[in-house]
Amino acid sequence: MQVLNQKTSHKALLDRFQKIRQDTVNLCEPLEIEDYVPQPASFVSPPKWHLAHTSWFFEAFILKANSPNYKVFDPVFGFLFNSYYQSLGARAIRDQRGIITRPTVAHVYEYRRHVDAAVETLCAQSLSQETQFLLELGINHEQQHQELLITDLKYTFSLNPIFPVYKTGLGWERPLDNTDNEWVRIQAGTHYVGAQTNIFSFDNERPQHEVLINPCEIRTSLVTNREYLEFVLVDGYQNFRYWLDDGWAWLQDNEVHCPAYWLKQGDSWWVYTLEGLQKLILDAPVSHVSYYEAAAFAQWKGCRLPSEFEWELACCDLFWGRRWEWTSSSHQAYPNYQVSEGAVGEYNGKFMVNQMVLKGSSDATAVGHSRPTYRNFFHPHLRWQLTSIRLANDIS
Amino acid sequence: MQVLNQKTSHKALLDRFQKIRQDTVNLCEPLEIEDYVPQPASFVSPPKWHLAHTSWFFEAFILKANSPNYKVFDPVFGFLFNSYYQSLGARAIRDQRGIITRPTVAHVYEYRRHVDAAVETLCAQSLSQETQFLLELGINHEQQHQELLITDLKYTFSLNPIFPVYKTGLGWERPLDNTDNEWVRIQAGTHYVGAQTNIFSFDNERPQHEVLINPCEIRTSLVTNREYLEFVLVDGYQNFRYWLDDGWAWLQDNEVHCPAYWLKQGDSWWVYTLEGLQKLILDAPVSHVSYYEAAAFAQWKGCRLPSEFEWELACCDLFWGRRWEWTSSSHQAYPNYQVSEGAVGEYNGKFMVNQMVLKGSSDATAVGHSRPTYRNFFHPHLRWQLTSIRLANDIS
Amino acid sequence: MQVLNQKTSHKALLDRFQKIRQDTVNLCEPLEIEDYVPQPASFVSPPKWHLAHTSWFFEAFILKANSPNYKVFDPVFGFLFNSYYQSLGARAIRDQRGIITRPTVAHVYEYRRHVDAAVETLCAQSLSQETQFLLELGINHEQQHQELLITDLKYTFSLNPIFPVYKTGLGWERPLDNTDNEWVRIQAGTHYVGAQTNIFSFDNERPQHEVLINPCEIRTSLVTNREYLEFVLVDGYQNFRYWLDDGWAWLQDNEVHCPAYWLKQGDSWWVYTLEGLQKLILDAPVSHVSYYEAAAFAQWKGCRLPSEFEWELACCDLFWGRRWEWTSSSHQAYPNYQVSEGAVGEYNGKFMVNQMVLKGSSDATAVGHSRPTYRNFFHPHLRWQLTSIRLANDIS
Amino acid sequence: MQVLNQKTSHKALLDRFQKIRQDTVNLCEPLEIEDYVPQPASFVSPPKWHLAHTSWFFEAFILKANSPNYKVFDPVFGFLFNSYYQSLGARAIRDQRGIITRPTVAHVYEYRRHVDAAVETLCAQSLSQETQFLLELGINHEQQHQELLITDLKYTFSLNPIFPVYKTGLGWERPLDNTDNEWVRIQAGTHYVGAQTNIFSFDNERPQHEVLINPCEIRTSLVTNREYLEFVLVDGYQNFRYWLDDGWAWLQDNEVHCPAYWLKQGDSWWVYTLEGLQKLILDAPVSHVSYYEAAAFAQWKGCRLPSEFEWELACCDLFWGRRWEWTSSSHQAYPNYQVSEGAVGEYNGKFMVNQMVLKGSSDATAVGHSRPTYRNFFHPHLRWQLTSIRLANDIS
Repeated sequence: MQVLNQKTSHKALLDRFQKIRQDTVNLCEPLEIEDYVPQPASFVSPPKWHLAHTSWFFEAFILKANSPNYKVFDPVFGFLFNSYYQSLGARAIRDQRGIITRPTVAHVYEYRRHVDAAVETLCAQSLSQETQFLLELGINHEQQHQELLITDLKYTFSLNPIFPVYKTGLGWERPLDNTDNEWVRIQAGTHYVGAQTNIFSFDNERPQHEVLINPCEIRTSLVTNREYLEFVLVDGYQNFRYWLDDGWAWLQDNEVHCPAYWLKQGDSWWVYTLEGLQKLILDAPVSHVSYYEAAAFAQWKGCRLPSEFEWELACCDLFWGRRWEWTSSSHQAYPNYQVSEGAVGEYNGKFMVNQMVLKGSSDATAVGHSRPTYRNFFHPHLRWQLTSIRLANDIS
Repeated sequence: MQVLNQKTSHKALLDRFQKIRQDTVNLCEPLEIEDYVPQPASFVSPPKWHLAHTSWFFEAFILKANSPNYKVFDPVFGFLFNSYYQSLGARAIRDQRGIITRPTVAHVYEYRRHVDAAVETLCAQSLSQETQFLLELGINHEQQHQELLITDLKYTFSLNPIFPVYKTGLGWERPLDNTDNEWVRIQAGTHYVGAQTNIFSFDNERPQHEVLINPCEIRTSLVTNREYLEFVLVDGYQNFRYWLDDGWAWLQDNEVHCPAYWLKQGDSWWVYTLEGLQKLILDAPVSHVSYYEAAAFAQWKGCRLPSEFEWELACCDLFWGRRWEWTSSSHQAYPNYQVSEGAVGEYNGKFMVNQMVLKGSSDATAVGHSRPTYRNFFHPHLRWQLTSIRLANDIS
Repeated sequence: MQVLNQKTSHKALLDRFQKIRQDTVNLCEPLEIEDYVPQPASFVSPPKWHLAHTSWFFEAFILKANSPNYKVFDPVFGFLFNSYYQSLGARAIRDQRGIITRPTVAHVYEYRRHVDAAVETLCAQSLSQETQFLLELGINHEQQHQELLITDLKYTFSLNPIFPVYKTGLGWERPLDNTDNEWVRIQAGTHYVGAQTNIFSFDNERPQHEVLINPCEIRTSLVTNREYLEFVLVDGYQNFRYWLDDGWAWLQDNEVHCPAYWLKQGDSWWVYTLEGLQKLILDAPVSHVSYYEAAAFAQWKGCRLPSEFEWELACCDLFWGRRWEWTSSSHQAYPNYQVSEGAVGEYNGKFMVNQMVLKGSSDATAVGHSRPTYRNFFHPHLRWQLTSIRLANDIS
Repeated sequence: MQVLNQKTSHKALLDRFQKIRQDTVNLCEPLEIEDYVPQPASFVSPPKWHLAHTSWFFEAFILKANSPNYKVFDPVFGFLFNSYYQSLGARAIRDQRGIITRPTVAHVYEYRRHVDAAVETLCAQSLSQETQFLLELGINHEQQHQELLITDLKYTFSLNPIFPVYKTGLGWERPLDNTDNEWVRIQAGTHYVGAQTNIFSFDNERPQHEVLINPCEIRTSLVTNREYLEFVLVDGYQNFRYWLDDGWAWLQDNEVHCPAYWLKQGDSWWVYTLEGLQKLILDAPVSHVSYYEAAAFAQWKGCRLPSEFEWELACCDLFWGRRWEWTSSSHQAYPNYQVSEGAVGEYNGKFMVNQMVLKGSSDATAVGHSRPTYRNFFHPHLRWQLTSIRLANDIS
């Protein structure tokens, strides 16, 4: 458990809890009941599952332990909506979230209200430091699932031949404010990275520690669709020289020719967005590329991706916040990494192999959720998140 | 096209149309919106798809051709809900019916009402013999999908760990009226089989023709759960001697130990039904067995399955109608089989390989839908239908 | 057991045994040691396995039972080279015959000589009728494996980018003697089919029985490469209308565009043969087509495939013996089919589902091995045998 | 290209070339021709392929460029035995090395002699610094393949139910000399790691650079079979708490219960070795564990794996050289990593994702091949190499 050195009044914590819980409900406002159900791939979860799972988190880790009079809403929900329960049977469930039509959506919303009321009751009392931390963790956990909910939905909608519109006016595909392609230089030497203990952070951001940095430069603006399209048009996907070996195998096994959601019709390029099918906006940042594509593009440009620490040290000079950015760092434990006690301890440590760190945040991220030390991570072949590319160079 | 030698008044045909269309809606009455969505396996379709596809059939084959003023409800529906359209893209769709959340269920019901109204308008006029036949075909087609809709739903529900109840009081698992195990003898010689032209039949039932039959006997009652459980308990699934080679491979690849939907808890056997999880009723007919299991059970008993023609000739002496019954006959064309002109011609002919004929009907079959010449067919490994076993013997 | 009504002297039987055993060895004469090893697909066996398995057949069914002093060559050979032993462990073996480098080829030839000597010793004595039958069965079994050995080898060689030559001068791709496309008519009515008991036959050819035949005609000559190429060139493989549903799925899943072993280079068509890569000879019979391709071609021609019984009744008027010919008949038991006692009883009965009957014989068949009642059978997607197409038509 | 700061006489280089080439031939001395052929998994290559590929390396990178009169042995060998040629067609080949029966083993040995003679002729002349480096690279490359050849062979033999003996007296399973479980402490601070330029190294070991190390300790002896068996016996493979998420999925998908090649018979544990099936020697180092197993074992012990740099700094105090040791470091580029020009540049860079670094060497490694800066790497699920576990701890 992280003991926060900060003072947060119960009131402020409860306010944030209520706001974040309502944000999730608001995200689902444009959905039809049918949209809550499908799971088109194992890495995607149905909206209904996200709604229930985030509630289960508060129930399992806070209410059951700290609210003596709390009545579990339905014991079977723990089995149905617990992402980490790892028996053999439950694993099968992980791929079959899309067939769980009952409990209904209405029933899951009831569950949310039941949990909300109980948390509100709990917050009327004095909260231990641990409970405060767990509440903060639950709030941040829910924000993570907000991002997943909306990107999972995008994936599901993208497979529907009629390309449903989630909502207009989102503006996620707008051009970059700045495409000057300037580079910022990072001073070599020993620097501190990682999260201090005075604000909330996830376990994988801690502890703060020193790292050695070599001289390098990072581009201040993200790679655009225009730049990436050039890579596509010069047959970048047909030339193995640019690709990591695993990336080349992935590309061939999946017949990948361009970023996810791109469509070519005649000579024009289109892209599926949550506002429907749109013409590709050339000055918008490229999105939905795998780590393999990011690394191949950088290789073709004669550059490389930044490491997570280079990014963290340069970030105040970068225009970030539009897309999650692949780094060259694999997701591993910081020196003296401590796993939390109990089931909460499963949070990030079990994912410390085969995944790459992403820095920044995206148009889908809740405001205030990310920070410079934040470490997101995905397997290198995945690209249903709003992932993008930032370039770096060694300076010799 | 089959020209019926029968006289049916427009009024009677329209009445039947309206009744059958309402029957489908009634079947869905206990469903929640969520239940209409999932497709848990490629051989299963979501209820929403069945509702739309049966309507599309009337639209595509009758209304568009015969109703000059008919306005197509939505052109994209033909693409989304047409089971036979065989482009590469559309095949992908076949496995992804469960992600098509839009159009919504409400929208599909609107489609049904639109089609119903148009058919009613059409029936106010004089109908050509061809249109009458196509209407009859559409009615029978919808009855087939009623059976699929309910068995598909059962399959989906069976995967939900909370075992949802569709509806109580169905009584599909009731004991057989007769378990006397009597045998009826079929006279050897030349007999007529197949459908005459004076009542409706599917193309694969025609033409009526002569077959040579050898002396044999058929058991009047179906195999019961009690009998089949004995086969399970003597390790019938562990003894390759009883199994066809493909069946043995299927059994091992899928770790099959008993009929579908059976569950062992301690020493008791339970079965998932549309009324929820129930104790196995020993005198009820065994259900949800594959052809491989039916053939292995018969082999173990020292018997065989009847051929489709033996069944057809004996059927007036059999207690049938509870379960679809596997026969030893592969689904192939009768001599001088004629494919209908146009897209309707795809009806059954394309399935004449790798599938076995089933005779009879089941508790899920619409009343009056089946007849002695009826030929249902499935791949031998499938068992999500109400399939069962009837025994036969050669008499030398 | 089939009791032959014929008199065969021990001497004649032994002579045939010795000749057939030598034929197998001769077939392998052009092979390098390396060629004996690989198993490139589960339906293919390495030459070494064929050599050992055919010897094991004589050891297991004849020598162990009838030769009291017989010393088993090596008990582990029964496990390694027994195609039917059906434990879970052994099934894994079935796909991994290509990794069994020991026992060596030399050791397997020793095994053959050991078995040969023991059979010769046995034949010096009086043989029971059963032993005579089993010897005859073993001889026919070995002839079947001769055909498999050479077609399996062809499959393995075909995957080698340097297209090895097995042997020149085979002449399997020679033009048909007759391409007049004449048709022979079959008289409708009741006819006897199936094997009589006075000569050897396999269990699936028996018993002789009556069938009803409808009026039809069969083409005397096989379909040629010229005819089949026309089907390819008019985009027959892109038009789902000609294809069975399972065939269309097979074609798409496997990206099939032409018969196996065909290669297009520029505008010329080549074909891999055991004599190396050759230009396609247009008047030679088409080879290496699946049942799906045969049925689609026939559909495109407005014809159909003959049934196994139509073929059997017409065969004296057909030019047959060059290619195995797909029929429209699924491989099922004849009326009153009797399975032999014991392990020999597994011979054909377990394959009576999902497979189609082929009639005739091929350039790879041992002389005298086939006969009009012979029933070969394969799954409809397989095409590594010398399979071809003969056309038939109903006459109304 | 690495320019070595060392002076090596042509004579010494040629001597080493000849010795290493002969070592490979000696390794194959106990093989039968059949053993050279199979490829039982995509990560395994047949001995014949290793023999040819190592020769092709000298031909392609040295002889063709530097020996004007060199006559290529057979142009098709470049296609057949080039591991990196990355066209679509060639990828298929990568999984089908086991079906390439021709060229024969004898022909491949001819190829080796042809290449050897040409290299000897070349070495009679003055060699450029680049040619010297490439020769050194070819020698080291061949040593890598010696290790693969023998571990690949072990994998193939292990699948043979008769457990072939490669050779007796190898002694790879002997107990550790030291099982005192002492720990050596590493001083925190900035240290140099990576290869200097005065001796040969692979590209991924360079350049030498500084890293920051935290206080920690490393155990001087490897984990033994005794220790690992305890983990097995306390149901370590049934408890998800110890496992990385990808490891848990791997374990379940592959039904893994113990290290590769372990077999339980009754209550005894056996292990397949190149000397045949043997009783597990408890004080020998555990072998053939995946990274997932190594990490789970360490987690269970309350320890962790060392990073590659901790290992490199501690290595003079460790008893190493028996097994390759998994580290916690993913295989990534060192700062300012330079890829060599041309095809040689593909050497290691393309494998810098999804793989973990191993340090040390194993009983199968050629003497003198490894060094403290050496970085071997494999995907975390692979375990056919002689991989083992060394423990480390943070010191706070």
